[in-house]
Amino acid sequence: MTAPILLATSQPPDEEAAWREALARAMPDERLVTAADAFDRSAVTIAIVANPPPGALAGLPALAWVHSLWAGVERLLQDATLPPVPVVRLVDPTLARAMAETVAAAVLALHRDLPVYAAQQRRREWRQHPARAAGQRPVAILGMGEMGRASAALLRGLGFPVRGWSRSGAAMPGVAMHAGRDGLAAALDGAAFLVNLLPLTTETRGILDADAFARLAPDAGVINFGRGAHLVEADLWQALDAGQVGHAVLDVFTQEPPPPEHPAWTRPDVTVLPHVAAPTDEASAAAVVAAAVAAFRSTGQVPAGVDRTRGY
Amino acid sequence: MTAPILLATSQPPDEEAAWREALARAMPDERLVTAADAFDRSAVTIAIVANPPPGALAGLPALAWVHSLWAGVERLLQDATLPPVPVVRLVDPTLARAMAETVAAAVLALHRDLPVYAAQQRRREWRQHPARAAGQRPVAILGMGEMGRASAALLRGLGFPVRGWSRSGAAMPGVAMHAGRDGLAAALDGAAFLVNLLPLTTETRGILDADAFARLAPDAGVINFGRGAHLVEADLWQALDAGQVGHAVLDVFTQEPPPPEHPAWTRPDVTVLPHVAAPTDEASAAAVVAAAVAAFRSTGQVPAGVDRTRGY
Repeated sequence: MTAPILLATSQPPDEEAAWREALARAMPDERLVTAADAFDRSAVTIAIVANPPPGALAGLPALAWVHSLWAGVERLLQDATLPPVPVVRLVDPTLARAMAETVAAAVLALHRDLPVYAAQQRRREWRQHPARAAGQRPVAILGMGEMGRASAALLRGLGFPVRGWSRSGAAMPGVAMHAGRDGLAAALDGAAFLVNLLPLTTETRGILDADAFARLAPDAGVINFGRGAHLVEADLWQALDAGQVGHAVLDVFTQEPPPPEHPAWTRPDVTVLPHVAAPTDEASAAAVVAAAVAAFRSTGQVPAGVDRTRGY
Repeated sequence: MTAPILLATSQPPDEEAAWREALARAMPDERLVTAADAFDRSAVTIAIVANPPPGALAGLPALAWVHSLWAGVERLLQDATLPPVPVVRLVDPTLARAMAETVAAAVLALHRDLPVYAAQQRRREWRQHPARAAGQRPVAILGMGEMGRASAALLRGLGFPVRGWSRSGAAMPGVAMHAGRDGLAAALDGAAFLVNLLPLTTETRGILDADAFARLAPDAGVINFGRGAHLVEADLWQALDAGQVGHAVLDVFTQEPPPPEHPAWTRPDVTVLPHVAAPTDEASAAAVVAAAVAAFRSTGQVPAGVDRTRGY
């Protein structure tokens, strides 16, 4: 009899049940348990988690590794009771593809002034604004992992010049790559759109600030699909008021949902998305996790986890 | 001394002046005149027009051909005083490219439920909706001329399956092409998005009707970037009310701007754009016209015009 796999989430019951069902379908020979089930905690070697309640992974002496159902693991890594075992974050090509589609949707919506025309429609105002060609409007993507690269590929296909910024600065054909603090300035200088897809780390916290906005082309579009804490909100409101930034699309917030008095809800120059830029596809995420579990079962080898110092 | 070229538009004075300037820059050796200037009407062989006032082209005995500054010439062809000379419509690759970008922007905005989230934002509502992959959502493009083909190429690059419908049904790699009334049904059946880019002719008037909407996938997106008269508005409101169509993006109307009481202004499931899908680029349009004039001057050959029976 195989050792049970512990599923630990703080999702609403129906969402946790959906995950359990998707995982059970993807690995029918495994025994999945949750904290509510009766099982031998000392037999658990694998945990699958989505924002687990603090301490959920304590008291598992045989735990060998943890797979996150989400790509972002910064909150998980902050749990002081997390055992020092490898933590694998979700790298799902389906997710990268979904993110790239939302990035393209947001960039094109701003490129074609859709929020401006929506505001005009509410006033029944019929007024044309000059349009520019995609080829004249560079997009800077911060974070060139799986999601950044997929986004860069779609934007290139649409005709936008694309610049990427990442820790490594690893090359990508057709994309001007940059790395480091100096590289950040070069990536942002004169960009018409800034797309943030970075993981949240000590280095990237607050990276979307007044300095960054000042480097962009006037009336630039800012798209934050990373984490709420990447953005210095006060700096964004100021840049919007000054016209340095024309419109922002925010999918992530330090508190989600943002409180009713949060300025983003009512600013006409801000689009609020409810953390849907890269909606998790349970079936494909479960397939990715099942593949990692199957590899572990057949080789006994613990998969490589994220760099805990780096944070991703 | 070259024969004068008559510029005839019913644009506001500043817009006509901008056209005149762009044309003068593109063909500095030609003499451009408007109705307000003193010139010998019997010497005019070429007219350049943008929605000319009715009768503006009458009384030009030597007129050999007319170049439209616009792609759509259906209104021009209805002018009973239009002499029976070739009418050349604008075919500008820049324009096709601009249209394709707006088509991609509209399809992606609907694909990612941006209008739904915008409505939620106004209610300060934080709620996720399930997303599907582009690969599962066929787009039907009606009208596969220069603009349709450019749009199909961008949508293919974004991962949408694309079907095209045109008079000829001429093949395009990677696009399922259809022609004729039976072909229309095949192009529309189960499509998630319907994009209309057709020229307005007797055959295409009212083509966006209840029959067409009933063939689409439930909750489909309808994008009319052709002409207002392609759409049977009452059928669209009904299809929207029934949920057969989820959202419509309308850039064209039988009367522009639509009157204040027009339902499109206030329906939350309709996006009104002020005829900006393919914004004319005066410089590139003038270059295209100048090339046609130069060819005529050097060869003496009158260029081929649109098929007046067909209407484009």
